[in-house]
Amino acid sequence: MKHLLSMEHLTNDDVMTILNRASEFEQGATPQLDRTYTVANLFFEPSTRTKTSFEMAERKVGCTVIPFDADFSSTLKGESLYDTVKTLEMIGLDAVVIREKHDEYYNELLEGINLSIINGGDGTGQHPSQSLLDLYTIYKEFGKFEGLNVTIAGDITHSRVAKSNAIALQRLGVNVNFLCPPEWAGDFEAHHSWNGLIEESDVIMLLRIQHERHRVNANFTKEEYHKEYGLTFERESKMKDHAIIMHPAPVNRDVEIASELVECERSRIFEQVRNGVFIRMAILETILKER
Amino acid sequence: MKHLLSMEHLTNDDVMTILNRASEFEQGATPQLDRTYTVANLFFEPSTRTKTSFEMAERKVGCTVIPFDADFSSTLKGESLYDTVKTLEMIGLDAVVIREKHDEYYNELLEGINLSIINGGDGTGQHPSQSLLDLYTIYKEFGKFEGLNVTIAGDITHSRVAKSNAIALQRLGVNVNFLCPPEWAGDFEAHHSWNGLIEESDVIMLLRIQHERHRVNANFTKEEYHKEYGLTFERESKMKDHAIIMHPAPVNRDVEIASELVECERSRIFEQVRNGVFIRMAILETILKER
Amino acid sequence: MKHLLSMEHLTNDDVMTILNRASEFEQGATPQLDRTYTVANLFFEPSTRTKTSFEMAERKVGCTVIPFDADFSSTLKGESLYDTVKTLEMIGLDAVVIREKHDEYYNELLEGINLSIINGGDGTGQHPSQSLLDLYTIYKEFGKFEGLNVTIAGDITHSRVAKSNAIALQRLGVNVNFLCPPEWAGDFEAHHSWNGLIEESDVIMLLRIQHERHRVNANFTKEEYHKEYGLTFERESKMKDHAIIMHPAPVNRDVEIASELVECERSRIFEQVRNGVFIRMAILETILKER
Repeated sequence: MKHLLSMEHLTNDDVMTILNRASEFEQGATPQLDRTYTVANLFFEPSTRTKTSFEMAERKVGCTVIPFDADFSSTLKGESLYDTVKTLEMIGLDAVVIREKHDEYYNELLEGINLSIINGGDGTGQHPSQSLLDLYTIYKEFGKFEGLNVTIAGDITHSRVAKSNAIALQRLGVNVNFLCPPEWAGDFEAHHSWNGLIEESDVIMLLRIQHERHRVNANFTKEEYHKEYGLTFERESKMKDHAIIMHPAPVNRDVEIASELVECERSRIFEQVRNGVFIRMAILETILKER
Repeated sequence: MKHLLSMEHLTNDDVMTILNRASEFEQGATPQLDRTYTVANLFFEPSTRTKTSFEMAERKVGCTVIPFDADFSSTLKGESLYDTVKTLEMIGLDAVVIREKHDEYYNELLEGINLSIINGGDGTGQHPSQSLLDLYTIYKEFGKFEGLNVTIAGDITHSRVAKSNAIALQRLGVNVNFLCPPEWAGDFEAHHSWNGLIEESDVIMLLRIQHERHRVNANFTKEEYHKEYGLTFERESKMKDHAIIMHPAPVNRDVEIASELVECERSRIFEQVRNGVFIRMAILETILKER
Repeated sequence: MKHLLSMEHLTNDDVMTILNRASEFEQGATPQLDRTYTVANLFFEPSTRTKTSFEMAERKVGCTVIPFDADFSSTLKGESLYDTVKTLEMIGLDAVVIREKHDEYYNELLEGINLSIINGGDGTGQHPSQSLLDLYTIYKEFGKFEGLNVTIAGDITHSRVAKSNAIALQRLGVNVNFLCPPEWAGDFEAHHSWNGLIEESDVIMLLRIQHERHRVNANFTKEEYHKEYGLTFERESKMKDHAIIMHPAPVNRDVEIASELVECERSRIFEQVRNGVFIRMAILETILKER
C-alpha cells in the first residue's frame, strides 16, 4: 500500500489486515520498521483528535515528525498543494498526513509525488483512518461484521465519516441504515424517524452536526434537532442490551446525543479515540514498511 | 501530587521539596523517571517563556511532547475543554500543561479526567509554576524566607502572579507589601506610594501592566505610571545593598522599570527565566513519578 | 563562526568550507557534534521550505528542537525581539534561526545575546542559507564558479536572494547579469530584455514576484510579466545545452516560469530544495561545534 486515500481502494482483506495489526499493537506488539522514517502532518483544517492521534501513533512507530504549520506556510503565498508536497518530498519526508477542505485534493498529487500520502480527511469526501478505527471498535465489540445492524444518524451528505463507513461496512456484510432529516438525505436512501431503528440496531453511530459546513439553524434549532433526531435518554433506554453508541467526535452535547450519555456504559465514544492510535500505528507501519 | 493547580494546595513542605529538587537539577542531577511519559502543552493564550520553559523542561526529564495547536484545534468547533482533555487522555497522554483565560478552568476537569493537569496560568487566578520559580529565586538569593521584606508592585488585582506569590510568601514567613495606584487595589491592602518601601525591601517584585486585561491608559499614560509607580533609576539607587529586583516578564520597558535596569546587577529578571526550567523539571518529575 | 547573518560576512574560504561539508553530508557523512544542542526556529513570516528544511537539518545533526510559535508568542504582547531571544537563551537554547520582516533585525541582538543566530531571511535584506544552497547547486553542476555567466531575473530590489547571491557569486568570479522591468531596477544596473542573455547564460536564476512586498499589478498583469520577463518555452529552447534553471520558490507558475518547465530536465528547482538540507546541516554543524 503506497497511499491511504479512500476506503474504496481497500479490499476486505486489506481492512482485516490493518484491524488485526491494530489489535496486536493494542496487546503490546512492537512496530517492525527497519529505519527511522520522517513524516509531517499537513492539517489545513482545525483538528484535535485526528492530528494528535497521528502525532502519537507516528512517535509510537518510531518516526521523526517534522512540524508543519499549515496556517503559516507558503500556501499563504499561493503555493499549490503539489508544490508544497513535492518540496517536503525533496526535503526528505517519507510520508505526509493531509487534511484539506477540497474533495479528493489528492488527485493532483498522484502523478509526480513519490512520498506516501495518508488522507486525514478530504472536504466532504473520505476519512479512512476514522473509518478504520470505527470498524476496529465494532469488530472488537462483536468479533464479526456479518449480519450486524448499524444505524448511521445525522448529517450524512456532508459527512466524510458516513461515506467512508457506509462503503466499508456494507462490503463487510453489515446491514446499514441511515437516519436524517428529509432535507439532508441527498442521494442516500434514509429513514427520517427513529421508529424501529433504535430497537434493532447493534450499533448507533451518530454524526456530528457540522456547523462549519452546514447551517443547522436554517431548518431547526439545536433543541428541535435533539428531540427529533438526537439520541435522547428515552431512545437509549430502548436499545438492545449489548448495543453500543459511537460518535466520531467532537460531540455537540445535547444535540446529537444527551450530554450525560457521552460516557454512559454503552458509549464507545472515548474508546474510539483510544482505538484510533492503534489503527494509525497499523496504517503507518503498513505504508512505511513498503517504502 | 496528582495535579498542580494552585499554590493554595501546596504545604510549605511541598514547596520546599520542589525547591530543593530544582536546586539538585541546577547542580546537574539526573531526572528519575522510570519510563517515557507523554505530555502536551495546551496554551490558549499567547506565551513565550512559560510555554518554551515547559517544552524545555519536559525534554530534559525525558518526556515525549505531543504538539498541540490551541489556535487550530477542535475547540474552534466548540468542543469543551473537558472533551478536549479527555480526548488527549484516551490518546495516551500522561499530563497536560494548560493556560486558559477562565479563572479556575480546571474545576470542570477534576471529575472524570485521569491525566495530570499542571496549571500554566488561569485567567486572573493562579500561576503556580511562576510562583515556585519566584520562590526559588528568592531562596537561592537569601537562603531563607523568614523575616524577608518583599514588595509586590503593579497591577495586583489582575495579576495571577501576585496572588500566587502573596499566598505562598506570607505562609513562609515573608512580610509582603503591595504597591499600586489606588484605583487598582481591589481587595488588597496596598500602599500607593514608594515612600519607605524602597529602602526596606529585600525584594522588589514588579508586575507586568497587562494591557491585555486592563486599560492602563484610562488612568494614566505610560510615562505617568513609570514616574509614580515604576522602578526609576532614582528609586533603584535607594535600595538596600543586597536587595534584588524581580519581574515575571514580559517587561514593558520604561513602564514598570527603567529599560536599562532590566539587566542591572541586582536584577534577577533573566535569572528567573533560567530558574524556571529547573523548577518545571522538578514539578514534572514530582507529578509524573507518582503516576 | 558564531552567527550566520549575511553573505557579506563570509570569505570565499568560509563559503567553500560549507559547500564541501554539505557535499560530504550528501554522500552520507555523519555529523560531528559532541553533545545534543538545543535550537528553535523563530519564523515571524510564513515559510514552508526554509523552516521545514531547517527543522529537518536540525534533527539530522542531532539537535533537540524546541517549538516556537511566532504567531502566538509574547511578541503579541509587545515584547521586543531582544527580550524574546534573551529569554530563549536563559531557557538554555544554543542557537535560533530567525526570519523577520525588518532588514538587519539582528543588529539589536548582537550586544548582550550569547546564543548563535542564523538568519533565515531579514526583510528585503539577506537570506544566507538560501544563497549557500544556490551556490552549492551551481558548484555541483559545473564544478567551478570562475567564468560562469549567471542571469538573475525578476524583482531584484525586493529580493533578499538576489542581494545575497550577487555579492557571493561576483566574489567567486561569476559574471552576474540582472534582468528586470525598468521600474524595478533600483540601484542595480540591469537589463530590461532577455535579448542575448538567454543564449549566453549558464544559469538562469528566476526570482519570485513577491506579491507580499510589491504590487506587480500596478505595472503589468501576470500574463504581461510572463510574456516580457518570464521564462517561456520559446526562451528556454534557446538556452545552452548544459545551462540550468533555478528558482528559490515558491514559484508563481506561468508568471516567472512556464508551469511545465518547473520540472523540466534542466530545472534544478526541486533539486535546490534537496540541496538545502545538506547546506543547513553544514551551517548548523559549523556554528554549533564552535560553541
